[in-house]
Amino acid sequence: MDTDKSGEVTKITIQEPKTDTKGKGTSGASAPVIVATKAAQHPRKGWKKGVAIFDLVLRLSAIAAGFAATSLMGTTDQTLPFFTQFFQFHAEFNDVPTFLFFMIANAIASGYLVLSLPFSIVCIVRPHAAGPRLLLIILDSVVMGLTISAASATAAIVYLAHNGNSSTNWNPFCQQFNDFCQQVSSAVVASFITSTLLLSLVVLSAFALRKMK
Amino acid sequence: MDTDKSGEVTKITIQEPKTDTKGKGTSGASAPVIVATKAAQHPRKGWKKGVAIFDLVLRLSAIAAGFAATSLMGTTDQTLPFFTQFFQFHAEFNDVPTFLFFMIANAIASGYLVLSLPFSIVCIVRPHAAGPRLLLIILDSVVMGLTISAASATAAIVYLAHNGNSSTNWNPFCQQFNDFCQQVSSAVVASFITSTLLLSLVVLSAFALRKMK
Repeated sequence: MDTDKSGEVTKITIQEPKTDTKGKGTSGASAPVIVATKAAQHPRKGWKKGVAIFDLVLRLSAIAAGFAATSLMGTTDQTLPFFTQFFQFHAEFNDVPTFLFFMIANAIASGYLVLSLPFSIVCIVRPHAAGPRLLLIILDSVVMGLTISAASATAAIVYLAHNGNSSTNWNPFCQQFNDFCQQVSSAVVASFITSTLLLSLVVLSAFALRKMK
Repeated sequence: MDTDKSGEVTKITIQEPKTDTKGKGTSGASAPVIVATKAAQHPRKGWKKGVAIFDLVLRLSAIAAGFAATSLMGTTDQTLPFFTQFFQFHAEFNDVPTFLFFMIANAIASGYLVLSLPFSIVCIVRPHAAGPRLLLIILDSVVMGLTISAASATAAIVYLAHNGNSSTNWNPFCQQFNDFCQQVSSAVVASFITSTLLLSLVVLSAFALRKMK
């Protein structure tokens, strides 16, 4: 008799046969009676359900942060109030290829997070199912890589836009395009929050997988 | 009698007591004898050991790539063969703060990977121990985030160094400092390889944790 596969520890107690049959031939009465009490069958179900609900909450926060990052970057656009005869000073997010990559990466991450919600709900309904959790941990780490990549690349460019670099003769433009830089910086912060939430999701899923025995 | 904690399925067979004591008072002889045959005790031990060895191999490759990235970036240095009376054209990795961050992040990642080797070896010796594997998956994902972050930020700057950006008036300098750019690009590639290997390690550990039941 094995313990059942879903991970609970089954307590097996073995009752010794009653020994009140003194002096008689007890060939039949000596068969052991096994009672498998499944008293402590679901000791960690509540714990696992809590983890799954926390996973859903983190995921919803990550969706909010991801959409915030995408929309902040997508609407970044500033035209300076002065212009010459031939040139108007105008900055848009797709002037810099890195900002375009940032927007696309964050849109993909947000889309993935929305699509992952049903799997997260499956983990709440069936806290012991390892399949959906394994799928989530793998895809979460890939998407975490994508968002961190986008956020860091953009942070490097924003740092340059703020401070410039005298060695390479790249001048800062944030004095002129102040609102533009502010909005891009906010988008970078939102994207780093998404990345941190995704990292927490990976760690949480690892803990949940570890307890799945 | 529970199955043991390390995850094997233990087959318990219960031998009925010999019934050759006919006609005698068998109060003592009727106690059941339990033989726990651990025949199918390690059905997946080979598989798990294979995963642990593959983990070690990936980790060693990641160390090589990490050290390559660190040393490539650390030795990047180019002086142009022409100079004016007051100025010598010289490029070094710490002219750009992002390159300095890249080197520090990759050095940290390589150091961590070396320190993680004993834990990886523990996973080979004890393939069913979930603790070291959980520690590795969490730290691996954090360090993966760090290396991806460094590689992406540097890639954004290298892209700028190659192509420049006319909107922001940042000129490329790779025509002049060609060797410098080549070496930095190689370092970025090495760092992306480290990140990919770390991602594989996270996925592998997730699979190993999932089968740990």
